[in-house]
Amino acid sequence: ADELFLISGPCVIEEESIMMKTAEKIKEVSEKLNIPTIYKSSFMKDNRSSVDYYMGPGIDEGLRILEKVKTEFGFPVLTDVHYPDQVEAAAEVCDVIQIPAYLVMQTTLAVASGKTGKAVNLKHAQFLAPENMSKPVAKIESTGNENILLTERGYAFGYNDLIVDPRSFYHMRETGYPVIFDVTHSIRKYGIPSADPNGGAKQYLKTLARAGVASGVDGLFVETHPCPSEALCDAASQLDMSELEEFLKPLIELHEVEVKWR
Amino acid sequence: ADELFLISGPCVIEEESIMMKTAEKIKEVSEKLNIPTIYKSSFMKDNRSSVDYYMGPGIDEGLRILEKVKTEFGFPVLTDVHYPDQVEAAAEVCDVIQIPAYLVMQTTLAVASGKTGKAVNLKHAQFLAPENMSKPVAKIESTGNENILLTERGYAFGYNDLIVDPRSFYHMRETGYPVIFDVTHSIRKYGIPSADPNGGAKQYLKTLARAGVASGVDGLFVETHPCPSEALCDAASQLDMSELEEFLKPLIELHEVEVKWR
Amino acid sequence: ADELFLISGPCVIEEESIMMKTAEKIKEVSEKLNIPTIYKSSFMKDNRSSVDYYMGPGIDEGLRILEKVKTEFGFPVLTDVHYPDQVEAAAEVCDVIQIPAYLVMQTTLAVASGKTGKAVNLKHAQFLAPENMSKPVAKIESTGNENILLTERGYAFGYNDLIVDPRSFYHMRETGYPVIFDVTHSIRKYGIPSADPNGGAKQYLKTLARAGVASGVDGLFVETHPCPSEALCDAASQLDMSELEEFLKPLIELHEVEVKWR
Amino acid sequence: ADELFLISGPCVIEEESIMMKTAEKIKEVSEKLNIPTIYKSSFMKDNRSSVDYYMGPGIDEGLRILEKVKTEFGFPVLTDVHYPDQVEAAAEVCDVIQIPAYLVMQTTLAVASGKTGKAVNLKHAQFLAPENMSKPVAKIESTGNENILLTERGYAFGYNDLIVDPRSFYHMRETGYPVIFDVTHSIRKYGIPSADPNGGAKQYLKTLARAGVASGVDGLFVETHPCPSEALCDAASQLDMSELEEFLKPLIELHEVEVKWR
Repeated sequence: ADELFLISGPCVIEEESIMMKTAEKIKEVSEKLNIPTIYKSSFMKDNRSSVDYYMGPGIDEGLRILEKVKTEFGFPVLTDVHYPDQVEAAAEVCDVIQIPAYLVMQTTLAVASGKTGKAVNLKHAQFLAPENMSKPVAKIESTGNENILLTERGYAFGYNDLIVDPRSFYHMRETGYPVIFDVTHSIRKYGIPSADPNGGAKQYLKTLARAGVASGVDGLFVETHPCPSEALCDAASQLDMSELEEFLKPLIELHEVEVKWR
Repeated sequence: ADELFLISGPCVIEEESIMMKTAEKIKEVSEKLNIPTIYKSSFMKDNRSSVDYYMGPGIDEGLRILEKVKTEFGFPVLTDVHYPDQVEAAAEVCDVIQIPAYLVMQTTLAVASGKTGKAVNLKHAQFLAPENMSKPVAKIESTGNENILLTERGYAFGYNDLIVDPRSFYHMRETGYPVIFDVTHSIRKYGIPSADPNGGAKQYLKTLARAGVASGVDGLFVETHPCPSEALCDAASQLDMSELEEFLKPLIELHEVEVKWR
Repeated sequence: ADELFLISGPCVIEEESIMMKTAEKIKEVSEKLNIPTIYKSSFMKDNRSSVDYYMGPGIDEGLRILEKVKTEFGFPVLTDVHYPDQVEAAAEVCDVIQIPAYLVMQTTLAVASGKTGKAVNLKHAQFLAPENMSKPVAKIESTGNENILLTERGYAFGYNDLIVDPRSFYHMRETGYPVIFDVTHSIRKYGIPSADPNGGAKQYLKTLARAGVASGVDGLFVETHPCPSEALCDAASQLDMSELEEFLKPLIELHEVEVKWR
Repeated sequence: ADELFLISGPCVIEEESIMMKTAEKIKEVSEKLNIPTIYKSSFMKDNRSSVDYYMGPGIDEGLRILEKVKTEFGFPVLTDVHYPDQVEAAAEVCDVIQIPAYLVMQTTLAVASGKTGKAVNLKHAQFLAPENMSKPVAKIESTGNENILLTERGYAFGYNDLIVDPRSFYHMRETGYPVIFDVTHSIRKYGIPSADPNGGAKQYLKTLARAGVASGVDGLFVETHPCPSEALCDAASQLDMSELEEFLKPLIELHEVEVKWR
């Protein structure tokens, strides 16, 4: 479809009330802007910098909350998986299984995810040339599953910096599958905890999002939170949910022009 | 102004008939699309990979031709300078003096260019963090000249590859001066002669141009030639002038949306 | 200790005769050069570019062979793990548990590995600033295990290229744990299958190894094979085992000078 | 020759007494360590970040001081040139004409330098793939001059950071000309004024120098000053001349091992 779609939600699953509050706001924006939306959150963050940081509620509690969001708001839901033994349970609740960027080359995880028959969202690894995203794509296809999404989220550029290369969208589109731009993770500054406001370069959000949309994407991935500064993960990079609507408006218009000239 | 403007012309000054033919076509497109245009060409290419490659006609013959284009077609004209002793002569004919990317940190050249009082176009060096473009800007300002333009053309990304970082447009806009995107140089593949079709990655032209325009620019820089494969420099990256109009159309529309939401 | 040590063996566990043949040769070199040696091979390669490529014999058969090498040749043995449920079995046989570079930020895997009490070798991820290797180090330490090794293997430099930054050795040494240089993986050219000779830049092996050793390392990691061109993984980058001795000699001498001036 | 040689001196020519004091110390170290030495300093720094920073004494006064150093201490002397009209005068005094890194692709400057018949030291540009240093080399050769040196000084790695790639030494050696490692410029942090101690990462000096020497070089380039913190340029990166001797000792030993196994 030519319509821009949205993947949004808090980075990690926090307490239920926060998750429902965010879902409610996203629902409102989604209907107001008429933008199809998938609700996203992680039951586990397995690559945090410290064992002392919040890792999420775990798979059981996490999936319970995602299911509740799905039932109450009617969103399709997305979560990421880290180990093959999590895949089946995640697929019982979720409409989209996501492979985290660092794990996108892990064959066992990809194949297990593909076999669920659910849509699989492959995050573009920070270390992988964009044209090589065809490799994990083929692993999913090998399971007979062609319900695949690809998501850009920045590439390693020197140390502790990510760069968003417009050519990456070009290459991912070449696979023929929908391409998504995860703009909030693209502004993370590694080496600075995400609880520190300097851990995210929010001043770039608008510019990056516009560049990505005009490059040619089908969907946007924007982590949102009722109060980012208190978020339990990626506090520095999530968008305040109150800004979501205004953030999306110009992007929807740019997308319309881009699609017209595709 | 909110209108997108264009800098266009062949990379290097070739024989007069080719220069006039290109000017005629650019004039036609410029009027058809109602896009203000500056005619660009170099009298000297001082950084070619080999002494055996064409370096241009030299300053006297080059400026003679630029003056003729200016007179016959009414374009403002732009050329680049390489050594301080070329600046005064260039400024007698040209409306814009351009400092090449590799030379943008050369103080003497910058100051001499600023002193002409003409507009100075600073190309963003492939080795300079975009926020550091404030340094050559200040050198021009030190001469009392605030007629400054900044042009992105890709940053060193590994070896023999250039990357266009949307954040670069953000930083250059912070200077307060007009920002331009030189899209045809951004697709050059160093290490491959520009006479070899593999010396330019034309497949990226559309994607990069759209990303750049949506990032927020005021002007576009597109080298064009009547027959790029026979061009005496940058054959692999120049746009065929017959494609210029179609190339610009979506960019003008994207620019309108971007300006609306600026 | 001030002595340079060696980690060596074929990339992936192939048929038993090849593994024993390689062990025999490594044993010979190790004794001749008086260089303490750990035998290395993978029972599983979980990040190959295609599901059609050889992934290894699996954990049971793989560990059986490693145990045989250990018994027959008296080497300590090392293997890598990919999922937490593999860790315990690997630790029953192996002296060193290795976390692959892409997985070095996965908390669950790191903690499970640390808990075995075995030495844990952390590969430096291609996307991680070297000073951030302190993060996975702390995860291992959180289990009470301070038997940690760190291994450099190149950082993402543009697309499909790895760069070996001498500063990486500096930062990893700052952790206080032994630092190793995996030189054969540092010459891999991603995007080219390792079965293709162009998939590895062997011309750089000597230069890189010497630079790494002089930068200050405690050990070298060199994948070797009786016939690299027929190896089932990383054919393009493994060293022919017949060249191992000559390869190591200058490195041992450079190491002696480096240690003297440490 | 198999002996390591040294290029050393203050970054920019300051007042005469400082230049003589540095020369005296370098002479002492050079004789003590028996290391052939070229005295280096710049009469002009044309790429400083601000017009307000010290640019040097100019060509006449600068060359007068270099000539005095040459006469009094018997050193060959080296200076860099920025514009073709400086070359002839520089060549009258200097034994080595140096092309700055940013200017290494400027044909007119290279050809003018080659034509002097003096040795020409080509700095490896921060934006040029090392194998492409063959291009400026060929420009010098085109003048009949084969007295060429190549000097590594770090490559653009993300923004405001330089990386020293051991493979660069490999490629520059392939030209057949002597290769030098400029270690003090390799630790500059662009975007931070060199008057700020954070403008140079001195903690890396030893590691980088050792890596470079073991990679295979013929000479070292080390900027020294009697009191770096008061130096008029590159205060953050120059080595205190009192540390020069100890800095060189391990490098000479590493070089001996490297040459033995070349």
